[in-house]
Amino acid sequence: MKEKLREAAIELFERKGFKETSVQEIVEAVGATKGAFYYYYKSKEELLCDICVSYLDDLLRQQEHIIQDVGASCTDKLRAIVYMVISNIRTRKKSARIFFREMRHLADDHLAEIRAKRRVFRKRYEQLIEDGIARGEFKPSLNAEMITFGLLGITNWSYYWFQPDGGVSEEELTDIYVDFILNGIRAQSEKTGAGVGGSPISLK
Amino acid sequence: MKEKLREAAIELFERKGFKETSVQEIVEAVGATKGAFYYYYKSKEELLCDICVSYLDDLLRQQEHIIQDVGASCTDKLRAIVYMVISNIRTRKKSARIFFREMRHLADDHLAEIRAKRRVFRKRYEQLIEDGIARGEFKPSLNAEMITFGLLGITNWSYYWFQPDGGVSEEELTDIYVDFILNGIRAQSEKTGAGVGGSPISLK
Repeated sequence: MKEKLREAAIELFERKGFKETSVQEIVEAVGATKGAFYYYYKSKEELLCDICVSYLDDLLRQQEHIIQDVGASCTDKLRAIVYMVISNIRTRKKSARIFFREMRHLADDHLAEIRAKRRVFRKRYEQLIEDGIARGEFKPSLNAEMITFGLLGITNWSYYWFQPDGGVSEEELTDIYVDFILNGIRAQSEKTGAGVGGSPISLK
Repeated sequence: MKEKLREAAIELFERKGFKETSVQEIVEAVGATKGAFYYYYKSKEELLCDICVSYLDDLLRQQEHIIQDVGASCTDKLRAIVYMVISNIRTRKKSARIFFREMRHLADDHLAEIRAKRRVFRKRYEQLIEDGIARGEFKPSLNAEMITFGLLGITNWSYYWFQPDGGVSEEELTDIYVDFILNGIRAQSEKTGAGVGGSPISLK
């Protein structure tokens, strides 16, 4: 029943918004009573927190599995994380939208918990970039923290536009983005003279 | 007065959310009457639309100015657009947050107007990538549409985390991201054998 309540709330929060959805609507959607709801959740806010935590815990589990693969290079792991986020859009788009949009409705202690989990995800990603630099896979000049925000931007933004059943598949988008992340967009002939980390282009 | 109402609404919508802010609170914040409000705006929704349109029109004006610079290379223009978005965070963060978060509260005709403007911004950016490919500045193998979404992701995501007064300046972040976009993160020695557009890395 707890799972059913959460699934119904994901549908309603995503479509109508957290504030605009009542506990009554959630219980009606699964044919339960308010009593049943309050057996599992102290409040609607606690249910919102549960949706966010469950979304993040799932991502963290998948990420940990990728990071712990001792036989894989950092480049392999980077690719696997990009693919993981993109392929999760199919199954987790609604949870992700709720997460990004409604997080501000969480109580302070819940928000702190969520922020700590987000930070773990980001810091593990950043550590992967640091490891790749140490192993000579990535450029020594990289600012790992800023690059990690950039990588998160590329994939997180996909939640707002990517249609898994559209013209580009999850695998194709992963290929496009991993090649972009590793090699950039500059034509090879243009690279002459560009030192590691230096950019010959200046602001006009 | 219209500008004052808009500024007050930006503060309130950003802090409390669109749904949770009443017209009464907006007029109280500027010492006006509801009559004054309804002289300028048909509804709270029209004011939300005005905030989004004004945010996007400003971005579009800046982008057009950059694109039309006949003496600049596509790489120069790309850099200028990255800098434009990052430096706008300082002045436009609240409007941008409202835009991304509250857009779903717009009426259908307003939403269509906003989506058309977003599309113009994105398509101009994509055309810049196409032009850069045609001029030999960017790789011929690029999928310009997907790369453009990636570029938007890198800079739009900055609205969620970048602190203009933090440890990294707007100019530094622009340098980091433009170098990343042009050259990627892979160490130079690793590039041997990677053909244009091809990636030797496969999913494990």
